[in-house]
Amino acid sequence: MSLDPAVAAVRLAVRRSLGQADGDVVVVACSGGADSLALLAAAAFECPRLGRRVVGAVVDHGLQDGSAEHADRVVAQMAALGADETLSARVRVEGTGRGIEAAAREARYAVLEQVAERVGSTTVLLGHTLDDQAETVLLGLARGSGGRSMAGMRPAFDVFRRPLLGITRARTEQACAAEGIEFWRDPHNDDPRFTRSRVRHTVLPMLERELGPGVAETLARTAEQLRPDMEALDDLADLAFLEARVDDGLDVPTLAEQPLAIRSRVVRLAALAAGSPASELFHVHVTALLALVAGDVRGQVQLPGHVTAFRDRTRLGFRPT
Amino acid sequence: MSLDPAVAAVRLAVRRSLGQADGDVVVVACSGGADSLALLAAAAFECPRLGRRVVGAVVDHGLQDGSAEHADRVVAQMAALGADETLSARVRVEGTGRGIEAAAREARYAVLEQVAERVGSTTVLLGHTLDDQAETVLLGLARGSGGRSMAGMRPAFDVFRRPLLGITRARTEQACAAEGIEFWRDPHNDDPRFTRSRVRHTVLPMLERELGPGVAETLARTAEQLRPDMEALDDLADLAFLEARVDDGLDVPTLAEQPLAIRSRVVRLAALAAGSPASELFHVHVTALLALVAGDVRGQVQLPGHVTAFRDRTRLGFRPT
Repeated sequence: MSLDPAVAAVRLAVRRSLGQADGDVVVVACSGGADSLALLAAAAFECPRLGRRVVGAVVDHGLQDGSAEHADRVVAQMAALGADETLSARVRVEGTGRGIEAAAREARYAVLEQVAERVGSTTVLLGHTLDDQAETVLLGLARGSGGRSMAGMRPAFDVFRRPLLGITRARTEQACAAEGIEFWRDPHNDDPRFTRSRVRHTVLPMLERELGPGVAETLARTAEQLRPDMEALDDLADLAFLEARVDDGLDVPTLAEQPLAIRSRVVRLAALAAGSPASELFHVHVTALLALVAGDVRGQVQLPGHVTAFRDRTRLGFRPT
Repeated sequence: MSLDPAVAAVRLAVRRSLGQADGDVVVVACSGGADSLALLAAAAFECPRLGRRVVGAVVDHGLQDGSAEHADRVVAQMAALGADETLSARVRVEGTGRGIEAAAREARYAVLEQVAERVGSTTVLLGHTLDDQAETVLLGLARGSGGRSMAGMRPAFDVFRRPLLGITRARTEQACAAEGIEFWRDPHNDDPRFTRSRVRHTVLPMLERELGPGVAETLARTAEQLRPDMEALDDLADLAFLEARVDDGLDVPTLAEQPLAIRSRVVRLAALAAGSPASELFHVHVTALLALVAGDVRGQVQLPGHVTAFRDRTRLGFRPT
């Protein structure tokens, strides 16, 4: 029997990702969806060949009825697929409404890091696909917060790795079908109250129809090209911030030598250092700080988190409001 | 009688743009659409107050039946709105199908530059609006060629200025209505064979519906934030190219010190310098050149325009195929 091409593609992606990761134990985060079950099956196939053990981990957010029973089913499925060890972790998610997705994600990543530490692993595989990446780019575009939010999800950060960012969701479903794996469909993913669900079910199909097929691939490629651009500029800004930093502020003549792309990042870093929270610091604040630096406006700029920015001769200063 | 807010907004945008431009004569490119007629009317109001003359120019592409009569009507309209001088220029557009939009644009810009030179002007105002900018960003996104194509249209380049990039198309229509200006609707703009027309009439309204109102503003803001980022990286790449350049190629160790964002731009610049045409040089070629630089692959890379790239010890070389 020849190997199904979808199964082969997922295995190859996992093999490549593991080739860049250290350690004897690989944690696979598994929701029970097609993407993470295909990922787990591929890891269970590849890891023994690399002398590594697979720990399958399911996180129960407790947000849906029957979530505990669902977690039990996923645990049984992971064991059947060949995970050397399985575990289920319950998290408490605080927050409501629009913030709940972000809160659930944060809680999930924190518990997965704890799991990795407990089992002595430095590698946690996540099942995000090319479609997830395309959705993330569109959501970033809709926020309008510039290149950083459109650079999408990173293939690797801290202990986490995303081997499937180049593989479509449909491909992971094919891989599951070929291996006889029954996967779960999260009803949240179809709930039109969530922006991401509308992006998935309405926006992306419409873009495919109007702009031509392959839009998801195009969006993922955009992220891939923007990411190194944003990283290079952020690194340059970190250096420029150190250079321009003075007591409680920035030296304006030093800052003025930098191009706008760096100047805007440095004033943002200075505002963050002064205590303004990243989640509330927007383009409009950065623009106001730049006007203060350029001398286009006089006076003060009020920033989120009760921080006041002011111009003091050659210094851009910050103080508590 | 109080001033209509839409008229006031267009005039303010024109005043601000002219404040950054030199010269006694201002050319306004006018198609007869709401955007460029509102622009012309605002320029005709502002310029006398700044001691400047307004030359209204209409370009006849000869692509539609009755285009000469249309140009005559626009000339008469521009004169009635207070242009000090009017002229109509006929251009010949080569090309068919998909390329015709680009060919028409190129011909138009070339003739407008000639017009400016003839009337002794260094400023040509173009009527592109915030909606045009949003459409440009989406079209760039659909091409998937990274940040550069999503950075949108520049507010100023060479002799050209776009004062209305912050003003919606609807606003220019309101301004025309308030001043009793009858404007033309280009049937090309509604022709679903043109991608830009589908973006305007289907994609953007759908995004507004699914992602929330203000998507056009958000896309324009994305362009505004990406533009300085791309300019800074391109400037750094120009310097790095000079540093790494050796006979017919690049010094690999010098190149290797640069971050990926700069490295990818430098190999692209080197390929262009070796004769590969910009219109055919894509991300896939840059990726192949980077693999050659990194030593991940051996051998040669075939580039468009009959150029072969090869690795020769510490050099990335280029030669005609």
